[in-house]
Amino acid sequence: MKDFIFQNPTKVVFGKGKISKLGSEVKKVANKVLIVYGRGSIKDNGVYDMVTNSLKSSNVDWVELPGVKPNPILSKVYDGIELARKEGIDAVVAIGGGSVIDTSKTIAAGYHYKGDIWDAFTGKYKVEKSLAIFVVLTISATGSEMNGGAVITNEKTRQKYSFWATTSYPKLSVLDPSAQFSLPKIQTANGAADAIAHVLELYFDNTPNTLILDEISEGIIRTVMNSTEILLRNPNDYDARANLIWSATLALNGINGTGRSGGDWSSHAIEHSLSALYDIAHGSGLSIIFPAWMEYVRHEDVEKFARFSRKIFEIGDVDDEKAALEGIKRLKKWYKDIGLPVTLHDANIPFDGIERVVENAAMRTPFGRLKRLEPNDVRKILELCA
Amino acid sequence: MKDFIFQNPTKVVFGKGKISKLGSEVKKVANKVLIVYGRGSIKDNGVYDMVTNSLKSSNVDWVELPGVKPNPILSKVYDGIELARKEGIDAVVAIGGGSVIDTSKTIAAGYHYKGDIWDAFTGKYKVEKSLAIFVVLTISATGSEMNGGAVITNEKTRQKYSFWATTSYPKLSVLDPSAQFSLPKIQTANGAADAIAHVLELYFDNTPNTLILDEISEGIIRTVMNSTEILLRNPNDYDARANLIWSATLALNGINGTGRSGGDWSSHAIEHSLSALYDIAHGSGLSIIFPAWMEYVRHEDVEKFARFSRKIFEIGDVDDEKAALEGIKRLKKWYKDIGLPVTLHDANIPFDGIERVVENAAMRTPFGRLKRLEPNDVRKILELCA
Repeated sequence: MKDFIFQNPTKVVFGKGKISKLGSEVKKVANKVLIVYGRGSIKDNGVYDMVTNSLKSSNVDWVELPGVKPNPILSKVYDGIELARKEGIDAVVAIGGGSVIDTSKTIAAGYHYKGDIWDAFTGKYKVEKSLAIFVVLTISATGSEMNGGAVITNEKTRQKYSFWATTSYPKLSVLDPSAQFSLPKIQTANGAADAIAHVLELYFDNTPNTLILDEISEGIIRTVMNSTEILLRNPNDYDARANLIWSATLALNGINGTGRSGGDWSSHAIEHSLSALYDIAHGSGLSIIFPAWMEYVRHEDVEKFARFSRKIFEIGDVDDEKAALEGIKRLKKWYKDIGLPVTLHDANIPFDGIERVVENAAMRTPFGRLKRLEPNDVRKILELCA
Repeated sequence: MKDFIFQNPTKVVFGKGKISKLGSEVKKVANKVLIVYGRGSIKDNGVYDMVTNSLKSSNVDWVELPGVKPNPILSKVYDGIELARKEGIDAVVAIGGGSVIDTSKTIAAGYHYKGDIWDAFTGKYKVEKSLAIFVVLTISATGSEMNGGAVITNEKTRQKYSFWATTSYPKLSVLDPSAQFSLPKIQTANGAADAIAHVLELYFDNTPNTLILDEISEGIIRTVMNSTEILLRNPNDYDARANLIWSATLALNGINGTGRSGGDWSSHAIEHSLSALYDIAHGSGLSIIFPAWMEYVRHEDVEKFARFSRKIFEIGDVDDEKAALEGIKRLKKWYKDIGLPVTLHDANIPFDGIERVVENAAMRTPFGRLKRLEPNDVRKILELCA
């Protein structure tokens, strides 16, 4: 196991009806907030009213930034920073999933920065100050509700990049499973693929002797799969929702990431190029890329890929190479079974789009820890997705 | 899954040589500290020198409270509070395991309380203020390095009680696996039994639909068992130490306790009566009591006991009752194999001591969540330990 520092200050309030607790928690640090949300589903399912009623009852004023889209864009962040400064707010309240939370985190960091907050994504600026961030989670996927990371697409340069800061952990995240009952099935499935990908990026990073981390990782994956299968039959199953939600949070809150080398993150890098160009859902991009990446790099650590197959799919008495391949096949089949794309064609991405993706990814190659990938490796992985 | 609030602010610095980081972290909040430790093993293994050198290099002064014993006692806490007030210290540095940490937490809480700090253990006083607590961990067992709990024995009344406060989480805990290389094997084994017991108290608390929590719990137990077996052959195996240490911390830092009903804690209650009277190691008390408690209450949730057997000992194709009993038998055998007592006789406790233990436990009965235990239940469980 590697040396590590673990500290996660986010307070999680979990359970049905807990959105009502938001106002009093916000009031401790803020009199006026910016609330950030997406395309209005929170007005249909009642979450918007619950949030604003809670703020009202604690005498917290607010201004609004609606309209955040999946694969959130930098210009929206700029709008938010401008609005936040003009209105003199004290905190940001994100009501949504990863896109809304990451937009909120970037606004909260940009509020204090005199330069262009895109600098945080290119490494030119290290974020060390942020407005307080509060989250009401409505889609479980990215884990952003309990970590310091954010992913934003610069739509001008077609770069989908991320930053991470200790000051960007949400102060409080409210996780109400019943707030996700009304999610379309495809969003539940996309969220599951994202959570599994986070665990696997960390799991396959070539750090030896990480038994406790691997046990937790495998437990998260098995729970995500089990809960997702239940939810696709019955989206209102409270306990399956609760198990999925908490698993997706744990997938990237540090608990299975400490003690490793930092994760591989190649599949995310390739997917970010894919969704920067083709605007597909992140989870759907990952269900295409991840099995192909696994197939391409499996010989770098075939024992670990075989362990994955045995622990997740109970693949028995075969050698490591066969076990590894069988596990990858089963994962791909599972994604297909829950309605996700597993080829570029499934996602309506033309085969001749591969070169565009390679070119976009080449802005950041080499990347990856288990195997350092050059543009030609990215091309070969994408060809496996055909 | 039940509603929960999760927040754990402790910063963990993990790895070989990390004790050197202590001074600069302490200096952020304190110029003078009370260092608390046990019976001198830290002077033999170099940990004392590492701590004091680190404090010196950051210009932190200290006074010392040595001599904390296993099953730590209230009079030592009083000594510490008196010394801390006289010397005007700003923080407490615990160098040791659970006994030292819990003594330190109680001193840190008592420093600000005008009454008798024993009130915190009897429920008369709710701890809401504490000096900052820093930990250098030298025995992994209680998980106290990353939670807000403390257990102290009032040696006059023979009460071994606990308190829990959000202000009692350590600010920082340094976990250096190499600092535990010199532990006697029996202490490694006792620590393993304690960590397993924490997981099981939470696991068997009769909350339905807790898949993600159960997966994590089972992963912790398998890792503790695997790592302990390696360490009894080679106490200096760094990675086994690292896996055991982090597992024991996770066993009681909230990550597998959230979403449950709060745990059963009967075995701990009975063990506390046992060790308050007979001064045996807590882990050794638990290796005697826990299998007997399991046997006695198994019909309250035989499916869960069967699940335990299947997930931990891979017990196959038998019915739940048989699986449950076989798992209990195997756990008992495993404790015996690692050198722990599994009967009162093994620990030199006379059979006629049972009535004394029942009488002591009766100060707090009824207790337990899976099954509420009355004094007669405690007697029957102890008889199963004969």
